[in-house]
Amino acid sequence: MGSPHHVVIVGGGFGGLFTARALKRAPVQVTLIDRRNFHLFQPLLYQVATGGLSPANIAAPLRVLLKYQTNTEVRLGDVMDIDAADHQVMLAGGGKISYDTLIVAAGSAPHYFGHEEWQEAAPPLKSIANAEEIRRRVLLAFEAAELATDPDTRRDCLTFVVAGGGTSGVELAGCLSELAHHTLKRDFRHFDPGSARIILVEGGERMLPSYPPKLSAKAAAALTRLGVEIRIGAKVIGVDADAVTIRGEDQTEHIGTRTIMWAAGVQGSPLGRLLAEKTGAEVDKDGRIIVQSDMTVSGHPELFVIGDLAHFALESGKALPGVAAVAMSEASYVAKLINRRLRGRSLPPFHYRDRGSMSVIGRNAAVADLGWVRAWGFPAWLLWVFVHLLSLAQFQSRLLVLAQWTWSYITRNQSALLISERNAHSLPSEISMEGRPRAAARGENTKRSSAVKEKVHS
Amino acid sequence: MGSPHHVVIVGGGFGGLFTARALKRAPVQVTLIDRRNFHLFQPLLYQVATGGLSPANIAAPLRVLLKYQTNTEVRLGDVMDIDAADHQVMLAGGGKISYDTLIVAAGSAPHYFGHEEWQEAAPPLKSIANAEEIRRRVLLAFEAAELATDPDTRRDCLTFVVAGGGTSGVELAGCLSELAHHTLKRDFRHFDPGSARIILVEGGERMLPSYPPKLSAKAAAALTRLGVEIRIGAKVIGVDADAVTIRGEDQTEHIGTRTIMWAAGVQGSPLGRLLAEKTGAEVDKDGRIIVQSDMTVSGHPELFVIGDLAHFALESGKALPGVAAVAMSEASYVAKLINRRLRGRSLPPFHYRDRGSMSVIGRNAAVADLGWVRAWGFPAWLLWVFVHLLSLAQFQSRLLVLAQWTWSYITRNQSALLISERNAHSLPSEISMEGRPRAAARGENTKRSSAVKEKVHS
Repeated sequence: MGSPHHVVIVGGGFGGLFTARALKRAPVQVTLIDRRNFHLFQPLLYQVATGGLSPANIAAPLRVLLKYQTNTEVRLGDVMDIDAADHQVMLAGGGKISYDTLIVAAGSAPHYFGHEEWQEAAPPLKSIANAEEIRRRVLLAFEAAELATDPDTRRDCLTFVVAGGGTSGVELAGCLSELAHHTLKRDFRHFDPGSARIILVEGGERMLPSYPPKLSAKAAAALTRLGVEIRIGAKVIGVDADAVTIRGEDQTEHIGTRTIMWAAGVQGSPLGRLLAEKTGAEVDKDGRIIVQSDMTVSGHPELFVIGDLAHFALESGKALPGVAAVAMSEASYVAKLINRRLRGRSLPPFHYRDRGSMSVIGRNAAVADLGWVRAWGFPAWLLWVFVHLLSLAQFQSRLLVLAQWTWSYITRNQSALLISERNAHSLPSEISMEGRPRAAARGENTKRSSAVKEKVHS
Repeated sequence: MGSPHHVVIVGGGFGGLFTARALKRAPVQVTLIDRRNFHLFQPLLYQVATGGLSPANIAAPLRVLLKYQTNTEVRLGDVMDIDAADHQVMLAGGGKISYDTLIVAAGSAPHYFGHEEWQEAAPPLKSIANAEEIRRRVLLAFEAAELATDPDTRRDCLTFVVAGGGTSGVELAGCLSELAHHTLKRDFRHFDPGSARIILVEGGERMLPSYPPKLSAKAAAALTRLGVEIRIGAKVIGVDADAVTIRGEDQTEHIGTRTIMWAAGVQGSPLGRLLAEKTGAEVDKDGRIIVQSDMTVSGHPELFVIGDLAHFALESGKALPGVAAVAMSEASYVAKLINRRLRGRSLPPFHYRDRGSMSVIGRNAAVADLGWVRAWGFPAWLLWVFVHLLSLAQFQSRLLVLAQWTWSYITRNQSALLISERNAHSLPSEISMEGRPRAAARGENTKRSSAVKEKVHS
């Protein structure tokens, strides 16, 4: 007997983690590689960005999740290259891992459509670090408003722009609005946080374009009631540190703001481009690998791509959306196919059974399209809370998140309104009178403290 | 009637926050200045460093804590200078605040006794950023051990050295030992985390020197049972990225390690030196301001120093220790004195009523010296849990921390074992085969992704 069939999985998101789990009883050895040591529950990342949850509430260590799965090994590492001919994965630092079957579930990256220079001023919401940075900027903007003496400066500090009217943009805008209008209500002495403007910019014809028009309209109405200004059919054409420029159908608007958030698009992870180059696979315009009907890469039956990095074409010509439910469904299919193959059998092509989608807008408001029924308002919101709680990977997280949600619901307080220090070794960064985070805060502080020390020691 | 008496408080720790709270009903206007937007419950910081709690569990926003206290304003800012003659505080960015009474409660900073160069390799545990950095290093050391092929490298990765046998060193070492021996027990495939060595280095004659010798001995025995190696009478004389050198009574030991933590000493905040220079106040050898019997600075009845930055001499010649209980007691005294003075009355000198101290060693083990009774083992541990839960500033934190402690107690799991990303805009940092965090991780990753993009776009 040789060594068991080795399945290597790149990425510990919904696709990768659920493939590994589904292979629990398969006669294979599994290696799951991720750059991070945790699985991130991305659908709730906006709640970290707005101070409702702590990072650890929505991130579960992969080793903990796979602790008792003895055929599986977790490896912290960064995949630098894939040798599809020799069946090897190359890691940063020089490690090589051979595979019999490879599953690439490397996910997506923010998409700035050729304007990567916007990222500094308009951070995306893809990682915990992003979420903490957004939380930091949002809270610092309120702090700067408190210190501002000039009304224009204060107005800019209190203007928040979210680019992108899909689920994550809508959720972020709704939550920001609650933060300004309720949570922070009594926190400041020199202005009313309720005067903050939250502007949601969507380039298409309507918000939440993946939903039926009626639900989009319901969502827009609910968001407007929460105090969010919605700009439909408006494209971001310029991003600066202190303003964003949007072009609507008949006019161009220049909005002074210190806080811009990017939820306007994602593309496949850079690993997809690399893989395409190595295997000749086709990529779509968003950098996703176009996969076969069994989720493999053309010409490579041992190489699967799933999740946000995969473009699985539907009969309609559209691709399956990059959401957790699709990734999990693909994961389950691929694990089953691997199992079948090992027993010399096959499986019909992958078919995604759409169980619906839902987006939350704010307290008591959400939209849900389950195919057979559409819901909005409080019922949809209850359903959303229920589904999201049950989907958290760790039982403990469910309890902690439930506790924090209950608390926030009753008191309208958020539990994690911390301005993170930017660098582990620096003193906390500061705000200046102009209200912008000081880029050189670290250097200045260090200089100051050593100056003080020198004076005393000399 | 003029404007009300203006009390400015520098620092939102135990001293500053509790002074502000105690002035709630006083006929004064209070401004509380801090560089951070939150009050940190430092006594539990070691639990963030070892993955038991999230930062937000032990940090409460100052604005939230003082939300309903209408005579008080919170100001995020960094004090750069104090003009004691003109009664002004100068902030970074150019702001100036005039005061009638000033309370400096700026706390302490780590003390490397002239070896500031050790800080990079041996971080202190003073801030949330420190705690997250230590958590990151500890977890990465285990990850590196999993990848190591050379037994010497693996042994070094699994050796953790804590410098300093006071309360925070003891608590950190005990918690690390539980992490290695219980929490991570089944998380790795290539080594037994239980083989990790945790070494506590104390330069004095015994651990926890502020306790009676009998309790020190009890604590040492409990810590040894937990698997911690204790080096008494051993001084750290060298710190490198991969080793620490300690000199005992009759020998010098070179310990290969990738993870060193510094809990060996604190000194007054740099603001103390500045204040001494401006007012001619005396500082002790640890940079603390020697205060009068009413907590004021000599010659400046309107200028108080309290908390870790104050040296309040006892009749024995010793100073009051830098612990939360002392700071809170001083806060209450100063607030009372300000109140009295405004009514033209006075107050006898400050007297600290010691209600005792306690240190936790690990699960079910602690020591407590309450003066009238000494306790150790399970009773002391229960008392510690009870007192610390009640001391958390926010009711919600109490519930969340209680929930997490209960969970950890039952399952021996920790809820926040995340390896933090080092920089908000970088990809997560990596470990190399040699097990050291790659200093250039950010640059390398960025280079890689753009290289990939270039290839595809060209």
